Amino acid sequence: MDTRPIGIFDSGVGGLTVVREVIKAMPLEDTIYFGDTARVPYGSKSKETVTDFSRQIMRFLISKNVKAIIIACNTVSSNCYNILKSEFDIPIIEVVNPGVESCLKVTKSNRVGVIGTATTIKSHAYEERLKEQRNNIVVFQKPCPLFVPLAEEGFTENDIAKLTAATYLKELKDKNIDSLILGCTHYPLLKKTIGEYMGMDVKIVDPAAETAHKMKDFLTSQNMEGDKNPGKHVFYCSDNCSQFNEICSKNLGIECHVHKVDIEKY
Amino acid sequence: MDTRPIGIFDSGVGGLTVVREVIKAMPLEDTIYFGDTARVPYGSKSKETVTDFSRQIMRFLISKNVKAIIIACNTVSSNCYNILKSEFDIPIIEVVNPGVESCLKVTKSNRVGVIGTATTIKSHAYEERLKEQRNNIVVFQKPCPLFVPLAEEGFTENDIAKLTAATYLKELKDKNIDSLILGCTHYPLLKKTIGEYMGMDVKIVDPAAETAHKMKDFLTSQNMEGDKNPGKHVFYCSDNCSQFNEICSKNLGIECHVHKVDIEKY
Repeated sequence: MDTRPIGIFDSGVGGLTVVREVIKAMPLEDTIYFGDTARVPYGSKSKETVTDFSRQIMRFLISKNVKAIIIACNTVSSNCYNILKSEFDIPIIEVVNPGVESCLKVTKSNRVGVIGTATTIKSHAYEERLKEQRNNIVVFQKPCPLFVPLAEEGFTENDIAKLTAATYLKELKDKNIDSLILGCTHYPLLKKTIGEYMGMDVKIVDPAAETAHKMKDFLTSQNMEGDKNPGKHVFYCSDNCSQFNEICSKNLGIECHVHKVDIEKY
Repeated sequence: MDTRPIGIFDSGVGGLTVVREVIKAMPLEDTIYFGDTARVPYGSKSKETVTDFSRQIMRFLISKNVKAIIIACNTVSSNCYNILKSEFDIPIIEVVNPGVESCLKVTKSNRVGVIGTATTIKSHAYEERLKEQRNNIVVFQKPCPLFVPLAEEGFTENDIAKLTAATYLKELKDKNIDSLILGCTHYPLLKKTIGEYMGMDVKIVDPAAETAHKMKDFLTSQNMEGDKNPGKHVFYCSDNCSQFNEICSKNLGIECHVHKVDIEKY
């Protein structure tokens, strides 16, 4: 047994979709979340800058005595996981492998799509790992930079969201894929619009639930489960945006009082 | 005479629209530009965070021995100008007052609109200064958060840009304004789309040229003009994005080799 909390981080609010699945899968665990709301978004920034930011966040979470960390951000997972794993002596679960595994379970035609931020797509992490697991798979990638600001503006189902989805996704639709990985933790907020455009025949793969189960399996295998009843959930962010409490409460159905951290000090 | 460079900063590439006007108005001046591309955008972040970021940039530019500084960012100008002015002993020109002055010259009906980022609009800086100058003026404000990511994605004249402009600007159009201040240095990139939607009767006010002239008048009045022929222009940013060189060259018609700075150290 290990009653220390699980650390979870993202560039902003997107990772809350992962927190929700963690609470569902492991209700007895405490969690500590960090959202880098002062420097969001990560997806248009270089691998080097995103790695520097992630190191500060890892140090912050470790200072809070977490037992393991979930990188609930695709840009960090696909660009910095190996570096962070080699530099920090703490178990880390990221979101790309769970997304790949979910996708391999649902695809029948082995023609799959991946959407994400510019920096995630440029890393080719999803494509490489899909092909490592199944060498006859055909992968089509597309960066969708406007999906994050659309989700943050609350434009998830209006005409602008629909037109943007059609503009970005047309080339994937034309490729006759049968599954589409949402390679950014913000994108589940646009799931309905994306799903309607792609049509009934395309399965939408959201890595969040699989990521939570991966952490659960790891903790079980190491006898590191928590026993809080229920777990406590603490939230930190780098900007003092009152919006965070609101989005957090709405997404998780629990009252949140986010704390501000000067992350550049870590 | 003072041959030291003029410092100019913005959250990202938007301030290059101001640099262009500075070069046009003062071809004999050296300039040093800083774009905070690692932490862009500022417009959705709190006044406190944006002030902290701006202090670091002021310290950086002062370390480069600039003679005066242009805040080429509306979010910083409208939220932090008074704080920065009180803390730093260097002449500072910001963009709000020039925008206000330009607008007062062109409006006939005294019904004017202001668009900008969420944090700029929330500050009410444009509204307050317009009313200080002319108490019978009627000001309508509207935040347009998606315009910055649209400009960065290069979606400035396509159907998504047009639909977004129509969605944001409809309520201003319905108010029968006769002039509209572009209260964000990114927005001139969408000027054509905004202008077409608003119609011929609405003058579009871009504070960039007026800001450059304000600096010129100040330097002249203080005998602080430069005499380089032509002036040299040096660019720094916080992320090593190769995109910056490209955007910079395209906007200014000069070859740029941007240098990366670890701004958190300042």
